[in-house]
Amino acid sequence: MTTSLKAASEKHLLGTKGMSAQEITSILDRAAYWEQYPVKLSNHLQGRFVANMFFENSTRTRFSFEVAEKRLGAEVLNFAAAASSVAKGESIYDTVKTLESMGIDAGVIRMKPNGLLEELAQNIRVPLINAGDGNNEHPTQALLDLYTMRKHFGHLQGLNVSIIGDILHSRVARSNLWALQAMGAKVSFCAPESMQAPELAAHAPYIAMEEAVKADVVMMLRVQLERHEGGLFESTEEYREAYGLTEERAGRMAPHAIIMHPAPVNRNVEIDDALVECEKSKIFTQMSHGVPIRMAVIERALS
Amino acid sequence: MTTSLKAASEKHLLGTKGMSAQEITSILDRAAYWEQYPVKLSNHLQGRFVANMFFENSTRTRFSFEVAEKRLGAEVLNFAAAASSVAKGESIYDTVKTLESMGIDAGVIRMKPNGLLEELAQNIRVPLINAGDGNNEHPTQALLDLYTMRKHFGHLQGLNVSIIGDILHSRVARSNLWALQAMGAKVSFCAPESMQAPELAAHAPYIAMEEAVKADVVMMLRVQLERHEGGLFESTEEYREAYGLTEERAGRMAPHAIIMHPAPVNRNVEIDDALVECEKSKIFTQMSHGVPIRMAVIERALS
Amino acid sequence: MTTSLKAASEKHLLGTKGMSAQEITSILDRAAYWEQYPVKLSNHLQGRFVANMFFENSTRTRFSFEVAEKRLGAEVLNFAAAASSVAKGESIYDTVKTLESMGIDAGVIRMKPNGLLEELAQNIRVPLINAGDGNNEHPTQALLDLYTMRKHFGHLQGLNVSIIGDILHSRVARSNLWALQAMGAKVSFCAPESMQAPELAAHAPYIAMEEAVKADVVMMLRVQLERHEGGLFESTEEYREAYGLTEERAGRMAPHAIIMHPAPVNRNVEIDDALVECEKSKIFTQMSHGVPIRMAVIERALS
Repeated sequence: MTTSLKAASEKHLLGTKGMSAQEITSILDRAAYWEQYPVKLSNHLQGRFVANMFFENSTRTRFSFEVAEKRLGAEVLNFAAAASSVAKGESIYDTVKTLESMGIDAGVIRMKPNGLLEELAQNIRVPLINAGDGNNEHPTQALLDLYTMRKHFGHLQGLNVSIIGDILHSRVARSNLWALQAMGAKVSFCAPESMQAPELAAHAPYIAMEEAVKADVVMMLRVQLERHEGGLFESTEEYREAYGLTEERAGRMAPHAIIMHPAPVNRNVEIDDALVECEKSKIFTQMSHGVPIRMAVIERALS
Repeated sequence: MTTSLKAASEKHLLGTKGMSAQEITSILDRAAYWEQYPVKLSNHLQGRFVANMFFENSTRTRFSFEVAEKRLGAEVLNFAAAASSVAKGESIYDTVKTLESMGIDAGVIRMKPNGLLEELAQNIRVPLINAGDGNNEHPTQALLDLYTMRKHFGHLQGLNVSIIGDILHSRVARSNLWALQAMGAKVSFCAPESMQAPELAAHAPYIAMEEAVKADVVMMLRVQLERHEGGLFESTEEYREAYGLTEERAGRMAPHAIIMHPAPVNRNVEIDDALVECEKSKIFTQMSHGVPIRMAVIERALS
Repeated sequence: MTTSLKAASEKHLLGTKGMSAQEITSILDRAAYWEQYPVKLSNHLQGRFVANMFFENSTRTRFSFEVAEKRLGAEVLNFAAAASSVAKGESIYDTVKTLESMGIDAGVIRMKPNGLLEELAQNIRVPLINAGDGNNEHPTQALLDLYTMRKHFGHLQGLNVSIIGDILHSRVARSNLWALQAMGAKVSFCAPESMQAPELAAHAPYIAMEEAVKADVVMMLRVQLERHEGGLFESTEEYREAYGLTEERAGRMAPHAIIMHPAPVNRNVEIDDALVECEKSKIFTQMSHGVPIRMAVIERALS
């Protein structure tokens, strides 16, 4: 068991923290292969079973994984907590062990608790792919973001990336931070004090909004003001004034710079409606890169 | 983009309004081909991805589309609003754009809002098939109803069809009206005043119940009395007395006439329990025609 | 219709009550074949459609059936009541008839009401497999339990099996009782009076906890204390003291004896946390046997 546990642990994708530039590059390169793949279906993973276990709601991430799995020829099992016996108090651990017992070959997992995934991965023999855990990591989102940047700029080394918004609650910010720094990009954060993450202060500087919009990549985060009740902002309009990417601010971005957002967007809160599909925006392009990135990641888990 | 948008728009199926007799006939003929198809699986749509996007609950329609898609060999993605981030306020538009970004080839969509689908179709490159929108249209239901009538009577031209019940809220009534009239059938409505649709008054006459049951086709609609609070009827029994297809009324139908209902039925409200599976009833036959009709419609969208 | 209804009724799996030793053995033998099957996918049921209709929540059972169906090469349709029009009052009967109309080849069904399944099976032409109905039967669970016991002990004849816990509400206890007795095993129950099933008293003796733990197989049941309000136990701790398999009690089990549980477990209520994955425990082994047993059962229904 020890060897198979060890083998699995090398194939888990729990986060981008600690990944080397070489590992990241190899995933991005393989995604490029899949993006160019001439037909929609391959038989690379024929006869392999992948379970998507979502203990937290998701549309785009679950679909993106499912398309990726099916394009690889795998058999797909979908589990959403709301329609399941997790309602009866069954623990996440027991659910995952159950699926392992049934012979699945890999699991994609999203969950609310922070830190549980690491523990889970140590007790599960099948490779696990993190599809978002608490505010800890969302590695496939960061990888598709890097893929989008590399494709646009040709490189990641030296790129200036501003991440703007609710850093405190954002697993996307964290996964991007670790992956971008591993690739030699420069990350800055921009957030009101109530949305700053103290434990990240040593890793990236907080800069003012007017400076943040001058980066090569302006990455906006979804803000959920209901999480910040009694906070600085009395309305979404006040937030927009202070930290939103308004049309006016977008007008001051560098000509070559791009706008990114992990979606779903709050139109006219963190980003103006007119910018979502503007020329600088890569928002729907990011989504389209989700599929080849996840193909590369699932293939890596099962190879 | 303009050409692909135009190409897609010709393959959308948003409603039966404006469809020609030729278009309808070609779908019915192709459904007849699929009804006779000797094996359950074909590979006509191998490697094509179809997303079923249900922003409103459904059992039979979603299943019927799913069986149709799988019989055509397509890859199927199911999306139900309740288990998704639509809960977080994501708009229908963004969900559909997301799925388009992921490379789906066609979308089947059901939603509550009226009029949104037309707008959506103008901004989406993949063909969309309406699986029911508000009280506007439900074109595949009407097509399978016409298929059922044509199969039984051999023709549609000149057929007398009574549609009885909550016309006001019924997308089934509207789609049947347009499709039947295009094929030369004669449609009459029968409904209490509170359930009549003013905008349809110019298109079909309202007739009395005693006359309505004398048609070649007596099509009952599901009534949801909770939508008509403070209305004419104090109980489902009162409704049944006035507008239900009772055994007694069915006894006065013409010998050759048939009973139809889009289901699910309210037994002993709009139709007596004993009639649901009686000899004149085509209710479960209608359902069985849903699969070949949807095979024809999906194939048309993806050809 | 009569012949096809008769043919279907022979292929239904409604319960283990009334099954012969020969029938049970043939399913267990076929499961052994599938457990050894060298690849994950077969094409035994290619082009056949199986619908999983869960009118009650489930994780493990639904997944286990889905894996089994996919390994056999069948097309799978999943229906969960919560996301469907059952919410609009559609009856279980109409849903199942609908799916039959759409051409499914077999249905796996879980539901709350007792006794409805028998009636349903008499009116449906496709074979139905009971995935748990009320507190009546859960035949595939019993079959996988027997498979686990036979694999461990080499035989079932003469085996002493204690079933401990909420017998009254347990379909697992009932299905195991009938199947084990058909195979010549000796079943005893152990439960507080409020959890005893009067109608089973004639079929198996109730014994004390200290005796129950001395059996060859100690099968614990999930207890839901909320069903027994105002009952004997004021806390889960009290229940554990009286009827839980504690580490201390497990220490008095025979050296060759095994622990079983249909899962999901309430850790530290009916079974101590440390026992769930201990050497004597077959809990996750049971789950892994669910897939080959269900392959055998589905194949039998469709052969």
